[in-house]
Amino acid sequence: MAFEGQELVEQYIESYSNWGRWGEDDSIGTLNLVGPEEILAAVGTVRHGRTVNCTLPLDLKGPQRPQMLRDNPRTIKVATGTDHVSGAQDQLPAGLGPANGFGRSDDITILPNQAGTAWDGLAHIFWRGKMWNGKSAALVSSSGAAANGVEHYAGKMVFRGVLLDLPKALGVESLGEAQAITVEDLERAEEAGGVEVRKGDCIALRTGFMEARRGDWGDYVQGPAPGLSIYTIPWLYEREVAAIAADTWGLEVQPNEIQVFNPIHIVGLVHMGLALGEIFDFDELATVCDELGQYEFLFVSPVLPITGASGSATGSIAIL
Amino acid sequence: MAFEGQELVEQYIESYSNWGRWGEDDSIGTLNLVGPEEILAAVGTVRHGRTVNCTLPLDLKGPQRPQMLRDNPRTIKVATGTDHVSGAQDQLPAGLGPANGFGRSDDITILPNQAGTAWDGLAHIFWRGKMWNGKSAALVSSSGAAANGVEHYAGKMVFRGVLLDLPKALGVESLGEAQAITVEDLERAEEAGGVEVRKGDCIALRTGFMEARRGDWGDYVQGPAPGLSIYTIPWLYEREVAAIAADTWGLEVQPNEIQVFNPIHIVGLVHMGLALGEIFDFDELATVCDELGQYEFLFVSPVLPITGASGSATGSIAIL
Amino acid sequence: MAFEGQELVEQYIESYSNWGRWGEDDSIGTLNLVGPEEILAAVGTVRHGRTVNCTLPLDLKGPQRPQMLRDNPRTIKVATGTDHVSGAQDQLPAGLGPANGFGRSDDITILPNQAGTAWDGLAHIFWRGKMWNGKSAALVSSSGAAANGVEHYAGKMVFRGVLLDLPKALGVESLGEAQAITVEDLERAEEAGGVEVRKGDCIALRTGFMEARRGDWGDYVQGPAPGLSIYTIPWLYEREVAAIAADTWGLEVQPNEIQVFNPIHIVGLVHMGLALGEIFDFDELATVCDELGQYEFLFVSPVLPITGASGSATGSIAIL
Amino acid sequence: MAFEGQELVEQYIESYSNWGRWGEDDSIGTLNLVGPEEILAAVGTVRHGRTVNCTLPLDLKGPQRPQMLRDNPRTIKVATGTDHVSGAQDQLPAGLGPANGFGRSDDITILPNQAGTAWDGLAHIFWRGKMWNGKSAALVSSSGAAANGVEHYAGKMVFRGVLLDLPKALGVESLGEAQAITVEDLERAEEAGGVEVRKGDCIALRTGFMEARRGDWGDYVQGPAPGLSIYTIPWLYEREVAAIAADTWGLEVQPNEIQVFNPIHIVGLVHMGLALGEIFDFDELATVCDELGQYEFLFVSPVLPITGASGSATGSIAIL
Repeated sequence: MAFEGQELVEQYIESYSNWGRWGEDDSIGTLNLVGPEEILAAVGTVRHGRTVNCTLPLDLKGPQRPQMLRDNPRTIKVATGTDHVSGAQDQLPAGLGPANGFGRSDDITILPNQAGTAWDGLAHIFWRGKMWNGKSAALVSSSGAAANGVEHYAGKMVFRGVLLDLPKALGVESLGEAQAITVEDLERAEEAGGVEVRKGDCIALRTGFMEARRGDWGDYVQGPAPGLSIYTIPWLYEREVAAIAADTWGLEVQPNEIQVFNPIHIVGLVHMGLALGEIFDFDELATVCDELGQYEFLFVSPVLPITGASGSATGSIAIL
Repeated sequence: MAFEGQELVEQYIESYSNWGRWGEDDSIGTLNLVGPEEILAAVGTVRHGRTVNCTLPLDLKGPQRPQMLRDNPRTIKVATGTDHVSGAQDQLPAGLGPANGFGRSDDITILPNQAGTAWDGLAHIFWRGKMWNGKSAALVSSSGAAANGVEHYAGKMVFRGVLLDLPKALGVESLGEAQAITVEDLERAEEAGGVEVRKGDCIALRTGFMEARRGDWGDYVQGPAPGLSIYTIPWLYEREVAAIAADTWGLEVQPNEIQVFNPIHIVGLVHMGLALGEIFDFDELATVCDELGQYEFLFVSPVLPITGASGSATGSIAIL
Repeated sequence: MAFEGQELVEQYIESYSNWGRWGEDDSIGTLNLVGPEEILAAVGTVRHGRTVNCTLPLDLKGPQRPQMLRDNPRTIKVATGTDHVSGAQDQLPAGLGPANGFGRSDDITILPNQAGTAWDGLAHIFWRGKMWNGKSAALVSSSGAAANGVEHYAGKMVFRGVLLDLPKALGVESLGEAQAITVEDLERAEEAGGVEVRKGDCIALRTGFMEARRGDWGDYVQGPAPGLSIYTIPWLYEREVAAIAADTWGLEVQPNEIQVFNPIHIVGLVHMGLALGEIFDFDELATVCDELGQYEFLFVSPVLPITGASGSATGSIAIL
Repeated sequence: MAFEGQELVEQYIESYSNWGRWGEDDSIGTLNLVGPEEILAAVGTVRHGRTVNCTLPLDLKGPQRPQMLRDNPRTIKVATGTDHVSGAQDQLPAGLGPANGFGRSDDITILPNQAGTAWDGLAHIFWRGKMWNGKSAALVSSSGAAANGVEHYAGKMVFRGVLLDLPKALGVESLGEAQAITVEDLERAEEAGGVEVRKGDCIALRTGFMEARRGDWGDYVQGPAPGLSIYTIPWLYEREVAAIAADTWGLEVQPNEIQVFNPIHIVGLVHMGLALGEIFDFDELATVCDELGQYEFLFVSPVLPITGASGSATGSIAIL
């Protein structure tokens, strides 16, 4: 199992692993870095009373290439307004009697949990048989994740968000496919936004790649994409970042820089316990930040506490 | 279609309808009552940096009585840690080559959109062929809601939340099945909490019924339940409430007080455009509010912007 | 609603409708033409004890263009062998104790009922608000088909099958896209096979188009295709055909010859009550028929009796 | 892993295993016992031209106890007649223009493959890490069964069926819960029906338990039930039975006679490669057999060739 880059991965794991740091039973990783102080600071960034949605619509027009890795979500109606107007609802269900004018629609969504804007859970990625905090990957069976399921993130995902708008900082419309984002790039984006990434923050990482592909997605998912370089790991660790959410399908540069798939997931998610989010829509947010001259905000992006799941769609909101 | 109580419903509709109030094309109703000022006030309630989850776990142990009105959500794995440790992931999918130690789990949730903690959308309820803002119910077909879909709520659902803890105010463990909550009750709860419901607020309505049934749900869904009386409509209108979220399956008292199903949905949701949420878990919140002596908070409970859906599960968080 | 060809459709309906022919409550249409005598004759064609599968594999490689009209079926595992070998099944579910070496796999298929080899049900198509036997289309709501559901076909679909191998009869590999099959073509295929279509038969209509597209489906579904001409309706009626199954996605020539979608479905399915099947795989059957010099066989292709469904996948077997 | 009865299981495996008997790559097991001669004999039993459905309706009223082992199938509409009559279908999908009176309904079934009348596939059960023909259970991952999937049964499941009507033979309405069916019982049923089980037959095993529970299923699934005794294994082997289909949820007596779950599945399915079917409805068949005085018939019960699945629903038909 030797591969090019293996030494780097092993060295990063050795240096930056947080296994055990918050106790043997911890299942939220770097969200431990967000305490009352950080939340109060996050709340303190709100000056205008504006909210910005950062979640893509969930429907068949989404970015997934259907029936490959994941499908886009499909919503199916189990009761409709057409039923109501056609008389099919004149009796209430379950023997409740005549509807007397009342009608309803209802639906079910078949939701691949990471098809759109979503958080990875800490049971999403494994490395050599283990997941976050040293737990065995075998705990994640067809019955669900017996440890590190995304439900442990419930009530969390409240951060100071910091928009790092790479295209703005680098003077381009969008980063290029296969463009690796370096520490220098990140710091130029901090400077451009007049912000500094601090302990407990969530980085909102905008590459411009979503804007470039929106609505005509092509290989946006599973194709070459701009993204974080594996060499940013030490910086992310030292800054004590709690979470990173990106506007690409995988957050990392694709193709990866070394001969293993998604090494930031391996070092960051599996070993640092870092919360990773993907397919976030930061385009309107970039406009608003630019307009207000403010690149920090209260970022609330709750998971659905789906027991044993590997990830979760999220309604995400920046409050400025 | 004459029924007992019809006159009341018609009179309330006549008096309290907001159709047209925010334009012919409005699709968010009373969320229009939440502007920058309300959001800043909401943010201003945060004093402790604490977060409380208000969403029930989404799994097969949920409150639905399976295969009646709705099922509980089912999460199914499409990749597992057991696959990883058994060698079934030794090659990456899609011809990406050897895994070199990398593994993953992934899943799909079959999610009845209102099975658990969820917001109704404005396409959820009809009255005599119409839905919110006078749109035809026939716009909600098997293809989805062509108007008033829950996706219009995206980026919203940021409120000053006000917990009205009825059991505390009335000195009981839980309100009783079929107990109608009156205006007087609401005002006693305001008083008990030292808060006043204002324009743009979200009422967090705690009846204690979830605590009474948790884990052994019985007929919690579709059975008799405490809930709002239809006679609270004028009060809700005058207070300019933006949203109400309750800890029961239907928010209204069950059985209903008059001979039509869920009249608050008819008057409130269809005609006032009032955002309604159900099956919220306010029990831990009640403990925290009591402990802090603070019954107001920043309440963020985003929808998933599922295009054309009638409602949406929500990760909901109170920030105090 | 006037369109080119409307007069033809109306005249055919006038001449060939079977509404009421088998009673007001009939819900199986031309399957009434198959009685004990026809079944004994069908059984009498079996001379070699051979069976041939006529159903395509049901999986993601199927002919559907995902997330357009229909998806291909997706099968998801709820228990796996990898769980078993990894120890995740060492305890039986439901508190049944230690597994002692026993293991299991299990799965769920998300099955669009007409995604692959399938029968249309008599609730599948409507014409001006009506379906088979004059029933209102409004009986088919989100709750299912209250009349003419595919479950009425249960225990049926036992025929004398007659292979009409058009490419063989016409000396081509495959009929062309948009090639209409005429009565003359059908009779040449009868002659080529040494068979005559009779009362109660199921025509196995082979165009060669599946063979031409197999595995690289392109627009096999919803694109131009060879198929039956609307002008075969009188012939089908007079021959008292019970069913037709074709190796194309829609059985009719595409684009249609007149200005209404799928007129054979309108006249044949809605008004004659004719059982129609699509996406059948008759390629191996054609080889076997040719080899044996026998174009008639016992054809058993049961539906799944899915209550209220508009159609059903079918395991279909020719017995020669 | 020692348990009571282990010796018996091991001895039966030793004596009756068919691993390797039909080649290393065989994936249909005892269906190899059905050749042209057996099929011609099966066809030869048809004397009356009658067909009898042996498949339960597939809907929410089925026998499963929802959200335990399996759900009942749920069918959801993606197009309805109510849409059609309400005008929501006035335009054809996919830009095909005006409907001109044409309408359609369509649906998707969420189908747990073994929720109702179904065949187990040879990838359904494992014993100590192996499945049929000695293949590793690890070949059955979340991606499906890479060996022994139910698709290998395609075009098969054509048998001489022999109804063994135990209640009739034993003079009771239904066998009792937990009643083990012995070799003696099987032979009394043969005698009562005037039939003898032969090489390549499918036994239609009627216990009467479905009739006893129909429509008010209670613990029909996963509860105590009559069924085959483990001690019938030698008889089944010697008679060269190809398949057994039963009217109970598990075919074997429940609770099992020894301390391992479903030993007939372990010895019969895993090691003999015996095709097993469950939840078949033989009640109408029993009436017809009695009326005609004929307990043998042509039995056609095709699987859906769902690639990699562990089992399959089946439309099953007895032809007499």
